[in-house]
Amino acid sequence: MYNYPDDSLALHTDLYQINMAKTYWEDGIHEKNAVFELFFRKLPFGNGYAVFAGLERVIRFIENFQFSETDIEYLREEVGYEEEFLQYLKEMRFTGSVRSMKEGELAFGNEPMIRVEAPLGQAQLLETALLNIVNFQTLIATKAARIKEVVEDEVVMEFGTRRAQEMDAAIWGTRAAFIGGFDATSNVRAGKLFGIPAAGTHAHSMVQAYRDDYISFKKYAESHKDCVFLVDTYDTLRSGVPAAIQVAKEMGDKINFKGIRLDSGDMAYLSKKAREMLDEAGFPEARIVASNDLDEYTILNLKAQGAKIDTWGIGTKLITGFDQPALGAVYKLVSIENKDGEMTDTIKISSNAEKVSTPGLKNVYRIINKTSGKSEGDYITLEGEKPQEQDRIKMFHPVHTFISKFVTNFEAKDLHTDIFEDGRLVYETPSLQEIRNYFKESVDVLWDEYKRLMNPEDYPVDLSEKCWNNKMRNIEEVKQKVQAYQDQAR
Amino acid sequence: MYNYPDDSLALHTDLYQINMAKTYWEDGIHEKNAVFELFFRKLPFGNGYAVFAGLERVIRFIENFQFSETDIEYLREEVGYEEEFLQYLKEMRFTGSVRSMKEGELAFGNEPMIRVEAPLGQAQLLETALLNIVNFQTLIATKAARIKEVVEDEVVMEFGTRRAQEMDAAIWGTRAAFIGGFDATSNVRAGKLFGIPAAGTHAHSMVQAYRDDYISFKKYAESHKDCVFLVDTYDTLRSGVPAAIQVAKEMGDKINFKGIRLDSGDMAYLSKKAREMLDEAGFPEARIVASNDLDEYTILNLKAQGAKIDTWGIGTKLITGFDQPALGAVYKLVSIENKDGEMTDTIKISSNAEKVSTPGLKNVYRIINKTSGKSEGDYITLEGEKPQEQDRIKMFHPVHTFISKFVTNFEAKDLHTDIFEDGRLVYETPSLQEIRNYFKESVDVLWDEYKRLMNPEDYPVDLSEKCWNNKMRNIEEVKQKVQAYQDQAR
Repeated sequence: MYNYPDDSLALHTDLYQINMAKTYWEDGIHEKNAVFELFFRKLPFGNGYAVFAGLERVIRFIENFQFSETDIEYLREEVGYEEEFLQYLKEMRFTGSVRSMKEGELAFGNEPMIRVEAPLGQAQLLETALLNIVNFQTLIATKAARIKEVVEDEVVMEFGTRRAQEMDAAIWGTRAAFIGGFDATSNVRAGKLFGIPAAGTHAHSMVQAYRDDYISFKKYAESHKDCVFLVDTYDTLRSGVPAAIQVAKEMGDKINFKGIRLDSGDMAYLSKKAREMLDEAGFPEARIVASNDLDEYTILNLKAQGAKIDTWGIGTKLITGFDQPALGAVYKLVSIENKDGEMTDTIKISSNAEKVSTPGLKNVYRIINKTSGKSEGDYITLEGEKPQEQDRIKMFHPVHTFISKFVTNFEAKDLHTDIFEDGRLVYETPSLQEIRNYFKESVDVLWDEYKRLMNPEDYPVDLSEKCWNNKMRNIEEVKQKVQAYQDQAR
Repeated sequence: MYNYPDDSLALHTDLYQINMAKTYWEDGIHEKNAVFELFFRKLPFGNGYAVFAGLERVIRFIENFQFSETDIEYLREEVGYEEEFLQYLKEMRFTGSVRSMKEGELAFGNEPMIRVEAPLGQAQLLETALLNIVNFQTLIATKAARIKEVVEDEVVMEFGTRRAQEMDAAIWGTRAAFIGGFDATSNVRAGKLFGIPAAGTHAHSMVQAYRDDYISFKKYAESHKDCVFLVDTYDTLRSGVPAAIQVAKEMGDKINFKGIRLDSGDMAYLSKKAREMLDEAGFPEARIVASNDLDEYTILNLKAQGAKIDTWGIGTKLITGFDQPALGAVYKLVSIENKDGEMTDTIKISSNAEKVSTPGLKNVYRIINKTSGKSEGDYITLEGEKPQEQDRIKMFHPVHTFISKFVTNFEAKDLHTDIFEDGRLVYETPSLQEIRNYFKESVDVLWDEYKRLMNPEDYPVDLSEKCWNNKMRNIEEVKQKVQAYQDQAR
């Protein structure tokens, strides 16, 4: 069945990628230098920014990129490719260059998060996996950042494994959540693999197993130092909370009575009542943990109602990006070496103006005002432009070009870092904690208007004039080509 | 980092499961026989039924359930469990029994899809992974079935890998889609692992690489027998379709011109125009493939507009279950061995009546009318009841109990099959094609009213009288216990 000992992720791609590689190979253009950019068009969840994540897994994927014996066998027997082409695939390793944002970087619409420059055949074969990885991880890091924005300094934990979309989503999702500001996870494997603090005490089933709140809490307390009791199995205020208090009193210093957890019912009401009961019993330090289909909106509502909740456990709504479970990032060819060995830019036209791609090898700069320390926007240039050496740059809206401004006294921060150079990994992966801190610092350059949960201001992502003019030239060329085709057909 | 050579899925669980296991172990009840049931409460997508999927992966998970060296090390160093408990975990293998629906079976709310009967500690440690697997795969199989219902006998392909929630979701999701009626996948690895037909020809990037529709199609045709040309890179009707036709004419019998693909724009208009152009050019057999954020509703709309589409490629909306990206299945303790070695049933109470669990070791029967061959509903009994030997059964609504009916002349089909017996796998896994066929047969027993896309009739899932009375008795017991607790506290 599916347990191939040499299951490889190189085959984790769409068949059309390999079919295109075959055409390139037969036509002898498979080694032509090509540039692809990975970007999304629209920010998820109506948020003002996205949090780039996934690079770690992308690096491992590219490093290990290699078709296995059984991959080649499958492609021979089931798809029917001929030996010579299979030989080309078999020997393929990544020899190109990758520039990317760092994980935790803020990303906006229509700016390349990753830029792959490699022989055409190779670059094409990376597309599907890179999108699969980055689309999900960036989505969840962004959702986590929204939730973290609302809980502020309170503790927030990822509890979503049982509702995650299969196992990879559970563990990579919780890693992304940690980047976006979460503090802990319930998933033990993620704790082990990524060093994220693992958290959790007990479920309803334990109370059911003992058929009694008090007995079960007591048993738990006798076998664990740190105790958070889940109080809503039978009756939160009439048996759950009183039992928790009774056990906490009886055990005294033998345990750390850290608090109680509510997982159903009217959280605002129950948390206030439970808070009173805990305070009266002499446990003002005991925390109240809430978990039950929470997201940034329910948390905001609970806070508005004065709910007495200190710690948040977030499952389904985070780990699936429930209100928008996919980020629509794409991977587009922007430049390719022609027969004469020169790079020529390429464009994808669409009847939807927003979907027309921006041709050319590009860089992305964050334009940070030296006085305020805040960002004026992102500035996309063609390779070779050096905004960091200019005194003044003109930024204008990429759609409504009459909206423009001149910016002076700025620092132009290059958002891309070299990851692979000619197939060699040249990037030292930071620790997950460093990535998490990097996001915290990155988000500090945004004015609050871009950070609010609903209807944030549009953050400017502008093209340099060169980049804009190049795009217009490419559109014009395609128009002429289509026209010529029409004329010839008549 | 995360590349542990012995990464094991036993650790793919919530920390609280292990913490509970520790309490059971210290209290000496970890080997007590316990019964957990896995079920969801509400059908996803407003569909009339769900398609159970995930058993294959559940079986592999249970078969391989074992903590690895580095798992134990992590639990020792980072969580701080003591050696004796770690020894218990280290030696743990699954020794219990599992009964489950077959993959492809129709499942409804509040009926156990999987029943685990095992030593308490073990049964508890399976929860998270089983839910993670079944929640996702059942969700996607159900979404696929909805889409298949709309496309009817037309070909429908899974194209979602790039938007899937990480890699496992891509491959297990496409397997689930195949069970629900999909015909092919773009994911080559899923093709290899599961034997699903892999499909796909080329993307926009190939047309961009050649900077011309005609040249790129020609190159593709020279290197592939089967050709579907993607025609919307520059201008669908003015250059894409004419170029496809030109290449098809020039290549003649050298290729199988299977058709064209549309991936943007007004699909209804473009498909009709393209159909005309293909027909006029002498290619009435050429198919029109559509792919662009499609789901059952857009397909229905396109059909209503008379779109000339023969083949459907479905991505994001299927693979993420976009409009409801999580199935809320839970895993509840329903019965446990007491100190005297007798099984006693357990219940979880909730202020929400729908969330009160149904205690006891149970079976699920589909009551099929022998005359019509259609189902009268599902019938949940306590273990030991034998509806298949009764002439007449009384079925009544589990909430509105005054709604009842007597059924005669029926066949009672046991929906559960033995999967593990005392830790031994006793189930022979059917092929994926057999599972797909099983779903097709299963759905045939439903009246059309339960199958429609919107507002289907509620399918009856009823409890036997014994089962109902047992539930009422358990609720009463809990009430008395809570009251006693209150009285004692005063």
